[in-house]
Amino acid sequence: MTNLLPVLDHAAAGVPAALERLFDLVRIKSISTDPAYKAEVQRGAEWLVNELRSLGFDATVRDTAGHPMVVAHHDGATANAPHVLFYGHYDVQPVDPLELWEHDPFEPAVRDIAGGRRIITGRGTSDDKGQLMTFVEACRAYKETTGALPCKVTILFEGEEESGSPSLKPFLEANAAELKADFALVCDTNMWDAETPAISAGLRGLVGEEIVVKAADRDLHSGYFGGAAANPIHILADILAGLHDADGRVTLDGFYDGVEETPADIKASWEKLGQTADKFLGEIGLSVPSGEKNRSVLELTWARPTAEVNGILGGYTGDGFKTVIAAQASAKVSFRLVGKQDPARIRDAFRAYVRSKIPKDCSVSFHAHGGSPAIQLPYDSPLLNKAKDALSEEWPKPAVMIGMGGSIPIVGDFQKMLGMESLLVGFGLSDDRIHSPNEKYELRSFEKGIRSWVRILAALAAR
Amino acid sequence: MTNLLPVLDHAAAGVPAALERLFDLVRIKSISTDPAYKAEVQRGAEWLVNELRSLGFDATVRDTAGHPMVVAHHDGATANAPHVLFYGHYDVQPVDPLELWEHDPFEPAVRDIAGGRRIITGRGTSDDKGQLMTFVEACRAYKETTGALPCKVTILFEGEEESGSPSLKPFLEANAAELKADFALVCDTNMWDAETPAISAGLRGLVGEEIVVKAADRDLHSGYFGGAAANPIHILADILAGLHDADGRVTLDGFYDGVEETPADIKASWEKLGQTADKFLGEIGLSVPSGEKNRSVLELTWARPTAEVNGILGGYTGDGFKTVIAAQASAKVSFRLVGKQDPARIRDAFRAYVRSKIPKDCSVSFHAHGGSPAIQLPYDSPLLNKAKDALSEEWPKPAVMIGMGGSIPIVGDFQKMLGMESLLVGFGLSDDRIHSPNEKYELRSFEKGIRSWVRILAALAAR
Repeated sequence: MTNLLPVLDHAAAGVPAALERLFDLVRIKSISTDPAYKAEVQRGAEWLVNELRSLGFDATVRDTAGHPMVVAHHDGATANAPHVLFYGHYDVQPVDPLELWEHDPFEPAVRDIAGGRRIITGRGTSDDKGQLMTFVEACRAYKETTGALPCKVTILFEGEEESGSPSLKPFLEANAAELKADFALVCDTNMWDAETPAISAGLRGLVGEEIVVKAADRDLHSGYFGGAAANPIHILADILAGLHDADGRVTLDGFYDGVEETPADIKASWEKLGQTADKFLGEIGLSVPSGEKNRSVLELTWARPTAEVNGILGGYTGDGFKTVIAAQASAKVSFRLVGKQDPARIRDAFRAYVRSKIPKDCSVSFHAHGGSPAIQLPYDSPLLNKAKDALSEEWPKPAVMIGMGGSIPIVGDFQKMLGMESLLVGFGLSDDRIHSPNEKYELRSFEKGIRSWVRILAALAAR
Repeated sequence: MTNLLPVLDHAAAGVPAALERLFDLVRIKSISTDPAYKAEVQRGAEWLVNELRSLGFDATVRDTAGHPMVVAHHDGATANAPHVLFYGHYDVQPVDPLELWEHDPFEPAVRDIAGGRRIITGRGTSDDKGQLMTFVEACRAYKETTGALPCKVTILFEGEEESGSPSLKPFLEANAAELKADFALVCDTNMWDAETPAISAGLRGLVGEEIVVKAADRDLHSGYFGGAAANPIHILADILAGLHDADGRVTLDGFYDGVEETPADIKASWEKLGQTADKFLGEIGLSVPSGEKNRSVLELTWARPTAEVNGILGGYTGDGFKTVIAAQASAKVSFRLVGKQDPARIRDAFRAYVRSKIPKDCSVSFHAHGGSPAIQLPYDSPLLNKAKDALSEEWPKPAVMIGMGGSIPIVGDFQKMLGMESLLVGFGLSDDRIHSPNEKYELRSFEKGIRSWVRILAALAAR
C-alpha cells in the first residue's frame, strides 16, 4: 500500500495552486438552462478535458443532443484495485437576481467571515465545481507524488445536471461498456455538519399515483340532492384518511414488506448527531413529528416509508360559496419507499385499497406518475466501511452513514443501466446557498475534501 | 260560508278569457337580468297594476333601486277572515339560446302534445306568470260572482326574482307595516306529479363554513420532510372523513338536537308517492343512497340534516406531479338543517370538532358563509291542513305535504322581517323546463290552479 503521508502533505501544500484552478473553472459561466450560455458550457467541458489531459487522463469532450459530457480514463497502479467511475457536473444554476449577490458570482475569491471561517464565494463553488475539483486535485496529488493512481479511474462530468439531465440516459445507454466500473463515486452531497463527514447510504424510492373519484354524471345542487347522492369529496377524504392508522403507520396490505429496521449501531450513530424534532421541524414552523410514532425525525425521513397526499381538488374552490355536490374529486398521492419495497406491489395495493372504498355506483380512475425502488447500500458493505474509515481519519468527528429522504436520479440510473452501486460522499454544508445568491464553499471543505479523496482512493485500492 | 260552486263554475267558464290575459302578460319581455329589457319589466308592472285595479284592488307600481314592485290591497268580505299576502314574480329568465325554442318564447299559445296533454308555451308561462295569474283569476272569479273576496288580500309582485332580488329586503323593511298579513301565500313551486298537488311544509336551513388548515410556514419537499412534517391535507381529510359515522350520521356534538322524526302519517304519505332511490338517483347516474342508513331518499332530502363538503383544495393540482407537502389546505363545508336545529350552535360544534383535530403545531382559520334555520310548518297546522283539504277536493289525488331540500329566500325573509309563515302551493311540473328553452305550463295547471285558489281562499276564510 502506498505511503499516504507524502500524498496528503502534497495535497495540503498544493491548495493555493488548486484554488487558482478552481477559480478558472468558476469564472466560466456554464449556466446550462439558458441557451445564451451554450458556448460557456462548451468552454467548461473543454477546460476540464485540458486539465484532465495534463494529469495523464485520456480525456475527451463528448457531444450530446444538448450540452457535452466529459469522459476521461486513467489506469490504476495495480490490476488488483477496483475500477471506479467518478461523477460530477460542471454546469451551474442561473445567478439572478444578480443584485442580491454581495460579490460577482463569476469572480471567485477566498473571503474571511465571522467565526474564523474562510469561504470560497461564487456560483458553482459548492454545486458542483468545487466538489468535483476535490477529486481532480486528489488525482493530481497522487500523480505528482507517486506518478500513478491507486485505482483505475473513469471520470464522467455532466453539463446538464441543473437543467434536468435530458442527455444522461441516452449517453449512459450508448456508452455503457465504456462507463461501467466496479462502482461509482458521486460528489454532489453534504457533510452532516462542518465537523462530521457523511456517506449517504440510502435514498428513498418513490411511487406517484393520481386518482379521480367520480360520482354523479354532473355537479348537483346540494339542497336538492344532499343527503342522498354520493359526494366524491367525502369518498376521497375517507380514502385518504384511511391511509394511516392511529400510530401513523400506512395501512395498505403488505406495505411494510421489504422494510427492515435500521441496525442498532446505525440508529445509535444517528442519535449521537443531536438532531431533534424541535430543531428539524422548528426551521419550518412546526414542532410535533407526524407519521409513525416513537421514531426520531432522522429515522422518519431517512429510513421509513411514507404515504403523502401532494394535492387534492374537488368542487367549488373560488371565492365565496357554492352549495354544489361535485361530480368528481381528485388527489395526487406519493409513497416514499425504503429497503426492498416493490413499487409495483405498492401501487397495486394502493389501487386495491382505493377500489375497496368506492361505492358500487361510483367509479375511480388511476394515473401512474413514476415509480422507483429505494436504493440502500448494505450498512456492512466493504465499500461503505472503507470510505467511512478513511473519512473518519481526515475529519474531527467520525463519519456517519446517513439516509436521504429524496432521490438522486443518477444513482438509480447507474444502478439500473450500468449495474453499479454509488458511494455518495460530498463536502457541502447546508448553508452553502446552492441555487441561491451568495453561493459559497468552505475553504476547509475544499482542502480536506481533496485529502478525503486521497484517503478514500487508497482505502478502496487496499483489497 | 260562500257557496263555492258558482265561483268554481265561473272560473272554469272564464278560462278562455283568462288565457288571453295571461298571453298579454307573457308577451311582455320582462327579462330582469338584462338592462336592455328595463322598459319591458316596467311595462309588466304597469300591466299588472291595471289588471288588479280592474278587479277593485288598490294597486300601485312601486319604484325601487332596481325594477319596480307591484303592491295591491283588497278588503275581505268579513272582518273575521284572515289577511293574506300573495307573493309572485312577473320577471322572467333570458331566452337564449333562441334557436332551441320550437316556438317564439314571447308568442304564447295553447298547443296539443302527445298523451292528450295541452300546454301553454312561452317564457314565464310556468315561472312565474302563469302561476301568479292563477291567483289573480281566482280573485276575478270571486269578484265577478260574489262581488267580494273571502279574505283580505295584499298582493306583492316582484320584478327581480330572476336576478337575485336585490331590492326585496330593503322594500320589505321599508314597507313592513303595509305588507304584514296573517300569513303569506307563495305560488312558485311544483306539484308532486300531474295528478298530485303538493304543499311544501318544510325548507331546510343552511350553515356554510370555510376552513383553512395551516401546517409548515412554507411548501415542503416531500422527500426531505415527508414522514416527519405535518401534512395539512391529511389533517383535513381526517376532519372531513370524521364528519360522518359508519351509519352516515353526522358526528358533531349535539348535531341532532332539535331534529324530530317525521310523523308516521306524513312518512306513510311520502311512501305512497312511489319515489325510489333508483328513480331519484338514476336521473343523475347513481343508484345507492348515501347519507343516513334506512331512510328513503325523500326523507333524506326533505327531512334530514346533512353535512356536505362543497369544495376542497390543497397542494399541487396541475398537470403532472409535484412531490410537495403543502403549507395549507382548505375546504368549504355546508350543513342543511331541519326542524329546530340552531345554525349558531351547529357552527360552534363544527368549529370545536375541527379544532380538536388540529395538531398543536398547526392552526386553522374559519370563515362563515351564511346561516339560516330550517323553516318547518307544523304538520298539524290549520293553515296547512285547510289548504291540503281544499287541494284534495280539486285534484284526482290527495294533496301531499312535502319538504324541500333547498331554500326559498323569500320564505325566510317573510318569517324574519314580517313575522309571517308562508304557504307554498304551486302547480308547476318538473318537466316545465323553467329557465330553459321551450318553457311550458300545463293548461290543466292553469285551469285547476285557478280553481284551487278559489277553494283555498274559501277554506282559509272559514275560521
